[in-house]
Amino acid sequence: MTDDQRGPRQPVVGMVGAGQLARMTCQAAISLGIGFRVLAETPADSAALVCADTVIGDYTALPDLVAFARDCDVLTFDHEHVPSGHLAALETAGAGRSGPAVRPGRAALRYTQDKLAMRERLRALGVPCPRYAPVTDLAGVAACAADWGWPIVLKAVSGGYDGRGVWVCGTPEEAAGVLAHPVAVFAEEHVAFDAELAALVARSPHGQAAAYPVVQTVQRGGVCHEVLAPAPGLAAGPARQAQRMALELAGALGVTGLLAVELFAGPDGLLVNELAMRPHNSGHWTIEGARTSQFEQHLRAVLDLPLGDPRTAAPQVAMANVFGAPPRTGAVGADIFTRFEHVMAADAGVKVHLYGKQVRPGRKIGHVTVAGAGMTGLRERAARAAAYLATGEEAE
Amino acid sequence: MTDDQRGPRQPVVGMVGAGQLARMTCQAAISLGIGFRVLAETPADSAALVCADTVIGDYTALPDLVAFARDCDVLTFDHEHVPSGHLAALETAGAGRSGPAVRPGRAALRYTQDKLAMRERLRALGVPCPRYAPVTDLAGVAACAADWGWPIVLKAVSGGYDGRGVWVCGTPEEAAGVLAHPVAVFAEEHVAFDAELAALVARSPHGQAAAYPVVQTVQRGGVCHEVLAPAPGLAAGPARQAQRMALELAGALGVTGLLAVELFAGPDGLLVNELAMRPHNSGHWTIEGARTSQFEQHLRAVLDLPLGDPRTAAPQVAMANVFGAPPRTGAVGADIFTRFEHVMAADAGVKVHLYGKQVRPGRKIGHVTVAGAGMTGLRERAARAAAYLATGEEAE
Repeated sequence: MTDDQRGPRQPVVGMVGAGQLARMTCQAAISLGIGFRVLAETPADSAALVCADTVIGDYTALPDLVAFARDCDVLTFDHEHVPSGHLAALETAGAGRSGPAVRPGRAALRYTQDKLAMRERLRALGVPCPRYAPVTDLAGVAACAADWGWPIVLKAVSGGYDGRGVWVCGTPEEAAGVLAHPVAVFAEEHVAFDAELAALVARSPHGQAAAYPVVQTVQRGGVCHEVLAPAPGLAAGPARQAQRMALELAGALGVTGLLAVELFAGPDGLLVNELAMRPHNSGHWTIEGARTSQFEQHLRAVLDLPLGDPRTAAPQVAMANVFGAPPRTGAVGADIFTRFEHVMAADAGVKVHLYGKQVRPGRKIGHVTVAGAGMTGLRERAARAAAYLATGEEAE
Repeated sequence: MTDDQRGPRQPVVGMVGAGQLARMTCQAAISLGIGFRVLAETPADSAALVCADTVIGDYTALPDLVAFARDCDVLTFDHEHVPSGHLAALETAGAGRSGPAVRPGRAALRYTQDKLAMRERLRALGVPCPRYAPVTDLAGVAACAADWGWPIVLKAVSGGYDGRGVWVCGTPEEAAGVLAHPVAVFAEEHVAFDAELAALVARSPHGQAAAYPVVQTVQRGGVCHEVLAPAPGLAAGPARQAQRMALELAGALGVTGLLAVELFAGPDGLLVNELAMRPHNSGHWTIEGARTSQFEQHLRAVLDLPLGDPRTAAPQVAMANVFGAPPRTGAVGADIFTRFEHVMAADAGVKVHLYGKQVRPGRKIGHVTVAGAGMTGLRERAARAAAYLATGEEAE
């Protein structure tokens, strides 16, 4: 092939991690015509099944990361678990032009890897958060409870996600049980919220930013089950406040790519709960529901390309996650693809996204989106389809 | 891996051909969670660049087709050039359960491979078409011209696409020039149309069908440049007639998958121009503009799954193709990706789809979609972005 016959030089994005976030980012990369590769743990990983350029490797091993990064222009992440020291080494290589740009960078990612550092940084920035305190023993927890009352929330400083690493303790005995684990934790007040919200923004290295409409997330056991976009009944004032807070945080923390800010909305206003610097479950609705999906937006942001229009493409959108159910005997529920057929037949307007993952109880194996008008109906349709996909039974 | 650890058994679709239609079908397959593979001519083919399961082979060689088909449940096509005898052999294997189902089947595909057979079948079905006649020499052409007047359209019986294999002859001398080629042709009257339309429908093996809104196509030199959805100014009566005609044709010809019917709309009503039985350029707007994209719909149809909602997701949609321009010297126009950056910066709502293809003059290398309200503005935005991507210059 001569130079003249080659296609134009397209940038290559490498994503560390090959779960469903990488899978849907891979799908978005196809339209952009860029190169996209994933670093997967196994060939059966969700994104590895669909990505034409999959590298199998260990994201905790620096040589694997360096080898993966070699032909990339930008390195980004579908999770926050790459060791900080490795990120530093990759950034040093990138600064010396012997490796890709790392986006988001280590300084920003730190606040998703260390929740206590995140709380301290947010306090320094004046961002409203739940009250919190470092604790090392039961006396420390009891002191917090004396101030804030029970229950007390204990959170793992690092490594938690999707409800893991978060314990709501109603009694000193429960707290003692958590403290018995060899895990560093800190204490937070238990917030009595009216609703959980998420504000998703994108920020590019040259500083352009875009904010999606604020959504409501419906969580059970700390795990997102439903997302309603835009958040029903949220007044314009708090909606703007949440967007502004997320945009300011993205700037203050130096985020490049997406920043998802999970919030509690309650009698005392908005409090920041968690941060994520990657495509986020609360943004899956954007595939059908926004002019630019969060996955395309993340790619545009980390490539320092102009950002896309984040506005909605439908008046309202409901998203429901599909979870693996316990194995069953009998015909119903035996095969997710058969159930998918029934869902398609029952509602031609439901958009199903399956992640190709092995079904394990409680595991996110897909999601369902319904866009249109009338949130009550959209939400019912999404929930019914998600429940049927999971179990082969109608939602209650 | 034990059986319990495996994911559910998902069907596998194999698509023969790896151009942009296969590329965008691959993108749609990711959401459905099905297996998807392509038979590509080279690793640089548009779909081969993004498909995790690419087989390199020759679609004119039966052993390559048989090997490719082996692990597929359904075989389908991104072009109509697989030899009919090979299709027959594949269908025989499929009927004997030693190969996949072939969809669409040979009997239907024949009418896209042999345009004269298509005209004869449509005439037998009473479907309105331009007047046509088999011709073998200039006397035959002259006889047609005596009836219909000049110009006379000569069409290759097989092998033509995108304006290739169609010659509009204004004089006997021009017709003689075409007849000098060693290509079987037939003659058609030159239709003075007001607009060109396309009616896209899907039909599944169990007979379910769905019709997209009828669109207007804007062609130059027999090549589609723009698509306007729904067709501006098309009255409800002719729109319904075009949809009904396409649905009836899909049933009468036994099409499984998509059927695109290209139509002339003129003083004498609607006349069928061409047929295609695959995703079609006139349906690219459905990715953003319809609840179910044509690519997902084709997969659902050939898998005999319930079809998705074909209705629009925006009031109006404009699509413009991006063509490779002649190579230029100087900075502007040197690099399509740089131009893409400018397009993104100029209009955050334009959706660009690049096919990863080498730029050659006149070659379709991507398309641009703008969804919203107000066709004049949408069309201008799409055309401007497409022209700038092609040349680095503003559209005239």
